[in-house]
Amino acid sequence: MLVKQLKDNESSTYTYLIEDEPTKEAVIIDPVKEHVEEYIQFLDSLNLKLKYILDTHVHADHITGSGILREKTGAESVLGEQTKAACVSRKVKDGEVLSFGSIDIKVISTPGHTPCHVAYLIEDRVFTGDALFINGCGRTDFQGGSAEQLWNSVTGKLFQLDPDTLVCPGHDYKMKRVSTIQQEKDLNPRFKNQTKEGFIELMNNLNLPDPKKIHEAVPANEACGV
Amino acid sequence: MLVKQLKDNESSTYTYLIEDEPTKEAVIIDPVKEHVEEYIQFLDSLNLKLKYILDTHVHADHITGSGILREKTGAESVLGEQTKAACVSRKVKDGEVLSFGSIDIKVISTPGHTPCHVAYLIEDRVFTGDALFINGCGRTDFQGGSAEQLWNSVTGKLFQLDPDTLVCPGHDYKMKRVSTIQQEKDLNPRFKNQTKEGFIELMNNLNLPDPKKIHEAVPANEACGV
Repeated sequence: MLVKQLKDNESSTYTYLIEDEPTKEAVIIDPVKEHVEEYIQFLDSLNLKLKYILDTHVHADHITGSGILREKTGAESVLGEQTKAACVSRKVKDGEVLSFGSIDIKVISTPGHTPCHVAYLIEDRVFTGDALFINGCGRTDFQGGSAEQLWNSVTGKLFQLDPDTLVCPGHDYKMKRVSTIQQEKDLNPRFKNQTKEGFIELMNNLNLPDPKKIHEAVPANEACGV
Repeated sequence: MLVKQLKDNESSTYTYLIEDEPTKEAVIIDPVKEHVEEYIQFLDSLNLKLKYILDTHVHADHITGSGILREKTGAESVLGEQTKAACVSRKVKDGEVLSFGSIDIKVISTPGHTPCHVAYLIEDRVFTGDALFINGCGRTDFQGGSAEQLWNSVTGKLFQLDPDTLVCPGHDYKMKRVSTIQQEKDLNPRFKNQTKEGFIELMNNLNLPDPKKIHEAVPANEACGV
């Protein structure tokens, strides 16, 4: 399995292209609309066939490339079953397994940042979107977010994975790239030595400004970015 | 490929156990003498056959478990060709390839912390020992170390690997677990925006005390820890 981590500098989003080498089937996680041509060039250069476009959630800070990628490649777009995006090819639920080549993708429902949020477990990597960052987590103060749900998703589901599982986040604002479940349990200041009540209070009092693109991005993403 | 990262808390050393799942062959990287029984229990619990014991270098801060593991498992112990440890089963040179199951181990000579230091590239992970840490690097002020050689090893060899290669270090003193080549190029303060001359001056003026166990560990490790 080959994993390529691509970055959108404007929104500090990480997009992942994952290839099953023997079959040349591939998936992409959280593509950003402005980079769709690059993704297609990359897929073409390695002669890859895109099978799934996996969004972890309906983003508020960038527009998904899923709709255009679907049109151009014929791949199926995927979101968690709680999404309002009727345009998506396939809605997945907790525990569901998709596959490309010989590789399984296990869907882990991780609501909290948004109700529809899912993480994707692929071999020894978990793609955590905006549920879990390196030393942080996504916000819970818009788009139906819930600090209590996020606490349950992270501590009850992601932190129960094998401690050596690599954490591949949806963003990092300080150029960090990868972590492990053990590292996040040991070091993440949002969860370490914290109670559910303390976490909820912390998250509900961050008082951050809305993401710049939220009023454009959410409706665009509910239309698959097209 | 399954990778388990084990920690020796006293010396903050990371030891890695790596398994080729189809064949059950395994290797261990930088084992610590005090934990040999744990490693053997772990190997036995998964019915693994240990093929190689790979030390990245002759350590100054802990005693290797390689000699005892070799006695108990029949595996071959491995060190870089520049080592003075005559007891080692096999001395490897830059570019040499070993294998276990269907997995290749590429030896990358990375002198600087010690003259014999090698890194091991296994699929998408590089086990960097004390050549490259997360946000740091090994010392160059004892055991034949050379800041100029370390600069050349890190910038000329490790930083030339695929940027998505996972960096699995030999130590971390702040509980971080994993990084990538891209992250180290972007963030490592020892190398970022640095010149070779600046790095040499920095490394030659750290004025750190000797590791506590150096006078015990180096001769013990030159005798394979037995």
